[in-house]
Amino acid sequence: MNKQIRKLLEHYKQISLLGKVSALAHWDLEVNLPPKASEERAAQLAYLTSIRTDLWLAKDFRSIIEDVDVSKLDQKEKAIVRNLRDSAKFYYKVPKEIIIKEVETTSKAFMAWKKAKEENNFKDFLPHLKQIIDLDLIIANHLGYKKNPYDALLDLYEPGLTAEFCGKIFNGLQPELTTLIKQIQKTKRFKNKSGLVGGDKNYPEQDQKQIALYVLRKMGYDLDAGRLDTAPHPFETKLGRHDIRITTHYHVNDFLDSLMGVMHEAGHAMYEQGVSEEYTNTPLQGGVSLGIHESQSRFWENQVGRSMEFVKFIAPVFQAFYAGQLGKTSTEELFAAVNDVRPGLIRVEADEVTYNLHVVLRFEIENALMNKKIKPDDLPEIWRTKMKKYLGIVPATDREGVLQDIHWSHGSFGYFPTYTLGNLYAAQFAAAMRKKLVIEDLVEKGEFGTILSWLRSNIHQYGSLYWPDELVKKVTGHALSPKHFLKYIREKYSQIYEL
Amino acid sequence: MNKQIRKLLEHYKQISLLGKVSALAHWDLEVNLPPKASEERAAQLAYLTSIRTDLWLAKDFRSIIEDVDVSKLDQKEKAIVRNLRDSAKFYYKVPKEIIIKEVETTSKAFMAWKKAKEENNFKDFLPHLKQIIDLDLIIANHLGYKKNPYDALLDLYEPGLTAEFCGKIFNGLQPELTTLIKQIQKTKRFKNKSGLVGGDKNYPEQDQKQIALYVLRKMGYDLDAGRLDTAPHPFETKLGRHDIRITTHYHVNDFLDSLMGVMHEAGHAMYEQGVSEEYTNTPLQGGVSLGIHESQSRFWENQVGRSMEFVKFIAPVFQAFYAGQLGKTSTEELFAAVNDVRPGLIRVEADEVTYNLHVVLRFEIENALMNKKIKPDDLPEIWRTKMKKYLGIVPATDREGVLQDIHWSHGSFGYFPTYTLGNLYAAQFAAAMRKKLVIEDLVEKGEFGTILSWLRSNIHQYGSLYWPDELVKKVTGHALSPKHFLKYIREKYSQIYEL
Repeated sequence: MNKQIRKLLEHYKQISLLGKVSALAHWDLEVNLPPKASEERAAQLAYLTSIRTDLWLAKDFRSIIEDVDVSKLDQKEKAIVRNLRDSAKFYYKVPKEIIIKEVETTSKAFMAWKKAKEENNFKDFLPHLKQIIDLDLIIANHLGYKKNPYDALLDLYEPGLTAEFCGKIFNGLQPELTTLIKQIQKTKRFKNKSGLVGGDKNYPEQDQKQIALYVLRKMGYDLDAGRLDTAPHPFETKLGRHDIRITTHYHVNDFLDSLMGVMHEAGHAMYEQGVSEEYTNTPLQGGVSLGIHESQSRFWENQVGRSMEFVKFIAPVFQAFYAGQLGKTSTEELFAAVNDVRPGLIRVEADEVTYNLHVVLRFEIENALMNKKIKPDDLPEIWRTKMKKYLGIVPATDREGVLQDIHWSHGSFGYFPTYTLGNLYAAQFAAAMRKKLVIEDLVEKGEFGTILSWLRSNIHQYGSLYWPDELVKKVTGHALSPKHFLKYIREKYSQIYEL
Repeated sequence: MNKQIRKLLEHYKQISLLGKVSALAHWDLEVNLPPKASEERAAQLAYLTSIRTDLWLAKDFRSIIEDVDVSKLDQKEKAIVRNLRDSAKFYYKVPKEIIIKEVETTSKAFMAWKKAKEENNFKDFLPHLKQIIDLDLIIANHLGYKKNPYDALLDLYEPGLTAEFCGKIFNGLQPELTTLIKQIQKTKRFKNKSGLVGGDKNYPEQDQKQIALYVLRKMGYDLDAGRLDTAPHPFETKLGRHDIRITTHYHVNDFLDSLMGVMHEAGHAMYEQGVSEEYTNTPLQGGVSLGIHESQSRFWENQVGRSMEFVKFIAPVFQAFYAGQLGKTSTEELFAAVNDVRPGLIRVEADEVTYNLHVVLRFEIENALMNKKIKPDDLPEIWRTKMKKYLGIVPATDREGVLQDIHWSHGSFGYFPTYTLGNLYAAQFAAAMRKKLVIEDLVEKGEFGTILSWLRSNIHQYGSLYWPDELVKKVTGHALSPKHFLKYIREKYSQIYEL
């Protein structure tokens, strides 16, 4: 191996170890932290960020990253330098005091957001939000951009992503989805909402957890190198190559929501568990972008979990655990229940059809905020207007409106569009997989191993070796296109709703 | 505040923050870590130690610690310097590569010990143990000592503790305890062992946990600034001033063992929760030594938890949870069950009378090992001989013998004697408390708050302001003496066993 690359990797290992320690501190904050300890944890996290920033700024490391002659490197080495340059630009362009200020500001903002959401009080969160928007704009200016400050932030989550590209994608999706929803809303099935979940239904948490663990094992998530815990906001996180944890939360009156969430997070986790071992603690470890990561979670949640074949596979387990609650419920009724299309207020509870409209709304707001076309003070009203426009409903409270998501309190402007990218990538990957495998047969038989093997050999093993645009071309032969997603959605829901 | 002290505190804050992050990583290792992640966690911990060592070695910090003119400082400032000098000597005298090697060696040794214990195979642990003994001797030589290399290690756990002092204490205790045990073994009560625990008795874990949480709340342990979790080895740890966690484990056939363990760990935890807030992240935060710490845990476990009055207080709760299992069990029978004196193989399960003999045995072995008077290879046989001598029984397996404790795998030679110091301090503190409070009345009424207040104002609030010898004189008027413990043990067990 190239001597300079070896030096980079030696130094980077410390950054990686520290990153995993930070991930542990975050995981513990969400899963375990005693209420009185949150300020101290914020200070611990800020300190870890400070050490990590110093490691990025170390002179020798920086000079190799900036000056190494890429032409003499092999494919892996080139990818290492590309990834380091991509991550380093944040540390090299944004002053350290701004990075620390961002951590401190968002730690406080997260606590303020949590309280404001509980108390349905946007005004208490507003000053924090303003600070974060100002800071994110300062960061965008340091990072630099051609046309739009928002582009600098989007690029942090998905390399090269721009507002213009997002705009094109959403302009293609939104009218089609709006039309489809209107057609669905006229059907008889839409009017007869499934009564399996909600209200005073009772599916004990313990049973839900046991079913989730069964499905995780069947899917191939390695529980000896991971865990399933309970947290208010479901997530996946990487505490080590062999320590990829996921969380969920359980609603006692809904046995489907948590299971779909677990399959989603396991999709993320199995991506990380499948990365080539030799990449551990190098810049090639880990999924290559949020969009590609989200494709793995969406694939398992939607393409697998919400398919008729998965319902047939899991129905006997549901019937065994919930004999009393489900009675003579047919697989068709179960299938309808996991694919109920219904405009709702909450993004994370949205179905496959309405989901991306929640993202459109957030994208438009973020883009407008970053270009100072709207004021943070007006967000609750803007939110209501856009909800009315895209989903035809209006939240009665900010808790179910502008305060619902954690992202802005984390300073993560630019994150939301990657959710839609994930849906598109997932559909395009699934279309490619279908050329080799009969997914439906495998799912119905519970033979998820074959599906996971395909994902491992085509996507997971590479970690961050290929950039997202390279990867999607390598796997599917084409650049990212919304057509696979639209085709999938149109066909699936036309059939379900007999359009 | 003195300018140099201010500089020390600013720098020390980083050491403290990092120490708490390490504590989190250790806690998670014991409570949550997926089995495949242990090597990675060891690497993360070693890296954190490496950063922390660098912080101790930072030039400016070191030169103030070594050169500051103590005569010009006030009491608090003097204590800060004394504590820093005491902690720093490890980093200043032991070379960094030895410190890192110790972390790496003990991480591997811990895993080897766990496996060797499971498989009852001392030979597989032996090479690790030899490495650790060699390393600890190297460390002792770097630290320096007058007569005995073991003194250098004892001093790491209890400032100024020597093998000679321990020897005197144990020589005073051992014959008295041996005589007492022989008297007890002749009684009728000894021969009629309580049948409330053991065998196929069934006290569901969930009930045990609920009772433990009730007792914790009554004692005054702040669960909003702590947690109770399950781990194979019960412990207490400090992840923040407001994040003092404890763990326990449950035996389904014994409802007493876990509860006493929880009271023990809560004793440690409430010490930390009671330290003056202004000491947070300074060298004054935290209990002053392991011996004093252990006095707090032993006080709650033994002086409170194993008293007749506590049994009277908790009996109705036991009866309500375990109506079927306990039937018409009287408080006298319950009291006998929590105070059953019986020579056993396992230290952590030992009663108050036999406990210190387990420590004598370990002290003698450690002292002989550190003076090369015995060989690690011969430990299983030496263990059996000493068990026969002090407790009259011989373990059939090394798992119940020389492999039972975690300490040596951690490299903690010199730790065990502090357990006995804790018992002695606890009895001496209790005797002082008795001059002001009628402990028995308060316990019977469940008025633990008054007891905790006494501990807070006399001991806890000071954190590490007073050195152990200063503290014991301040609180009790006298230097540490075994007489209070011997008096307590003799009186209590003479009554129980009608000697």
